[in-house]
Amino acid sequence: MPCTKDSELDKLRNEVLETTKEIFSLIAKRQSLCAEIGKLKQMKGLGVEDPSVERALRDSIAKEAMRLGIDKDFAQRLTTLLIEECTKVQPKPPERKVLTHRDIARMAEALEKQGIKVIRMDVGEPDFRAPGVVIERAYQEMRAGRSRYTEPKGKPELRQAIADYVRMRFGADIKPDQVIATIGGAFGVYLALASTISPGDEVVVIDPSWPIYKPCVRYVGGRPIVLETKLEDGWEPSLEELNEKISAATRAIILNYPCNPTGKALERKTFKGIAEIAQDRKLTLISDEVYADYNFTEKGHNTVLSYPDVSHVMISSFSKSWGMTGFRVGFVISDLERVNRMAAIQSMLITCIPEFIQYAAIEALKCLEDAKRNSDVMKERAEAVCKALEPLPVSFYKPDGAMYVFPRIDVEGIDGSEFAVKLLEKKNVSVAPGGAFGNYFNYFRISLGQPKESLLEGVRRIGEFLS
Amino acid sequence: MPCTKDSELDKLRNEVLETTKEIFSLIAKRQSLCAEIGKLKQMKGLGVEDPSVERALRDSIAKEAMRLGIDKDFAQRLTTLLIEECTKVQPKPPERKVLTHRDIARMAEALEKQGIKVIRMDVGEPDFRAPGVVIERAYQEMRAGRSRYTEPKGKPELRQAIADYVRMRFGADIKPDQVIATIGGAFGVYLALASTISPGDEVVVIDPSWPIYKPCVRYVGGRPIVLETKLEDGWEPSLEELNEKISAATRAIILNYPCNPTGKALERKTFKGIAEIAQDRKLTLISDEVYADYNFTEKGHNTVLSYPDVSHVMISSFSKSWGMTGFRVGFVISDLERVNRMAAIQSMLITCIPEFIQYAAIEALKCLEDAKRNSDVMKERAEAVCKALEPLPVSFYKPDGAMYVFPRIDVEGIDGSEFAVKLLEKKNVSVAPGGAFGNYFNYFRISLGQPKESLLEGVRRIGEFLS
Repeated sequence: MPCTKDSELDKLRNEVLETTKEIFSLIAKRQSLCAEIGKLKQMKGLGVEDPSVERALRDSIAKEAMRLGIDKDFAQRLTTLLIEECTKVQPKPPERKVLTHRDIARMAEALEKQGIKVIRMDVGEPDFRAPGVVIERAYQEMRAGRSRYTEPKGKPELRQAIADYVRMRFGADIKPDQVIATIGGAFGVYLALASTISPGDEVVVIDPSWPIYKPCVRYVGGRPIVLETKLEDGWEPSLEELNEKISAATRAIILNYPCNPTGKALERKTFKGIAEIAQDRKLTLISDEVYADYNFTEKGHNTVLSYPDVSHVMISSFSKSWGMTGFRVGFVISDLERVNRMAAIQSMLITCIPEFIQYAAIEALKCLEDAKRNSDVMKERAEAVCKALEPLPVSFYKPDGAMYVFPRIDVEGIDGSEFAVKLLEKKNVSVAPGGAFGNYFNYFRISLGQPKESLLEGVRRIGEFLS
Repeated sequence: MPCTKDSELDKLRNEVLETTKEIFSLIAKRQSLCAEIGKLKQMKGLGVEDPSVERALRDSIAKEAMRLGIDKDFAQRLTTLLIEECTKVQPKPPERKVLTHRDIARMAEALEKQGIKVIRMDVGEPDFRAPGVVIERAYQEMRAGRSRYTEPKGKPELRQAIADYVRMRFGADIKPDQVIATIGGAFGVYLALASTISPGDEVVVIDPSWPIYKPCVRYVGGRPIVLETKLEDGWEPSLEELNEKISAATRAIILNYPCNPTGKALERKTFKGIAEIAQDRKLTLISDEVYADYNFTEKGHNTVLSYPDVSHVMISSFSKSWGMTGFRVGFVISDLERVNRMAAIQSMLITCIPEFIQYAAIEALKCLEDAKRNSDVMKERAEAVCKALEPLPVSFYKPDGAMYVFPRIDVEGIDGSEFAVKLLEKKNVSVAPGGAFGNYFNYFRISLGQPKESLLEGVRRIGEFLS
């Protein structure tokens, strides 16, 4: 290396170069071993990824790194890079084509453009409109010039209003500095993950789940570990299985109750059990509670805020409760340290949310009767749809909350994706295929974001289709 | 590894584990060599980073990887990880505390809360308001229920309007599908980086630069490589130096002309030279053109869209041209493939931008006379401020555009951060310290986002302070 004339430095630099070359030569060896493993797995019909093998590898490396005095996060990052590269050199089985609700939505829109009326039960968006006072407030603030940059966390008035609301609604003692107003609930999930996960970390996702969780975990460099729940168990996650899914690399569990797509709300006992596991294993509970207001049970909503001693992020949104999807405003609550990390990310990525929309959100928090009315309407729709589904060849859990029903098709040989496409083509009814939510290919999701009459007509046509 | 009973697989897996351990043991050896180098450098008073040594290492590794059949991008990424970790184990000189414009803004707000009137020349936000028709349109659309989810890229009408605008404004032939309406210009920069960079990749940033670029490159796992420009050269980047900064790991160059903070607009010849380098070296030009409308020269704005054969992302915003900072709306333009990657990220992170704001943006694109008037006002302010700065003990480049002046303090022993703090305390004038924009500690940035009279009073007080 001719860059300096210093012989002592040059000698050391040469040694670094030689060592680096040796490292690469071992990596080449490692890759050819991985390629062999890949071929063997292919012959035996095994999948490429094997979480338990990976976990064992990571544990060994963690010990080795400690022994060698190598930084443990660096060691895990490097391991992730090695694993990913080795996965690339292994032959992969053809992937099962998963049709998402977005695919169906696009097909439905194409039909609509041809003038065909489609009963839209695909997209998870309530048909409610924002309260009039919310719109008027946004307008007044815009006119008054409130369309400037604000604090990344959101204006103090809004964060105070959210803290007050949360105290009133959930009895949780939250300081305004623990609140960030976010650009929607999805961004809240992203902030929670981005501020909690380092590359190579694992996150438990309970399936069936909102299709964004797993890609988002991967996007921040983490690895989603799926805990499957079953209709037969009333979509109740098993605490025992949950414990088995947790490894030394696990950092968080994502909860979403009331659940999209199942409508399940957890029993307090189960929620508490999960909280205890999180505390024991030092995990963060990332609790997406955007459907908190759509809870039809008498027991009321379970929130992670009831467990202040457990590391947590609570995510909420104005979208569902007040029909404000297109306002893109939500909030997250966590401990001050993580909130500040999340605020730094929001600041870098989007600066802040629109100023006048922050005032609209303040106004929405006063419209508690609107949120209640919307919830009552959703409950009535859920009941009507479930009643109409009863005689059909489907099985389902009667939702405790959220805005969905997630039936299984009990007709042999019907795949959920195929069902969704044909139902759309033949009956002009759009539903979300179950495969988008996990390994639930003979399920489909009905979104209740339509007037009851449309929903009932949709279910009637589903009945016709299945008969 | 007890995870499967398959002896053949187990044997191979064990070999993988042993090889991985060997890799780590070499890494430990490499780190101790690096630590030795670090000590030696410290003794000799040399800096920790040495780009030419790094480049030589990268070149050797590239050859070695090719010889060994290792993917070359993966090899460079791994090399970055090794270099960064080795930089960490070397003793570092104490870091210089960098005060940002946000720190100064917070201090200024604290004074304002005490009732003290501060002349705010810190934040890069024009004082212009959104055109009235923009506000009315947003209101009308909200009232009409246009507050729902939209396509992640933005509504087709808006993307068509942007494509038409870009054709009219820059003569660029862009299809609506190559456009994404983003939640502000900063998010456009993020999307450009996130869709272009893999961990370990390098990105050239031309300093002085907007303080968000380097952290954002790091945030997506990349490594910012700084090309410094000098006031003495009229902030013109040297093509020769640029070439030297590019290594096998370089993927992109970030351009921001007219420039925040210098006000520099590139000569067409220089822009072309950079485009040619990008084409030769297969790099992406990420061109942040949010100040395109604030161009005071007669030669007009240079846009990366003039180089369709070069891989590029063009970023723009409604914030500056129309005084719409708090609407959080901008757009990016690129090739269809990258645009689709960016749209997938925007979809996952924020779903879409508020629907009624998309209509507001359509309306703004019709208000060309407002953008022109705002630009004229900014030009007049720039001229007045420069004239007022002339007699002061400062040196500066008379801005070609943007909304800033970036003077150097020609008084011995004054540090830019100290200057900003004392100026605020003693004269109640807030400016952004130069250190926030790179290695420019005896500079400060004046933002022109205030009425001329305030700016002139601010400069008068700066003069008093420096005399």
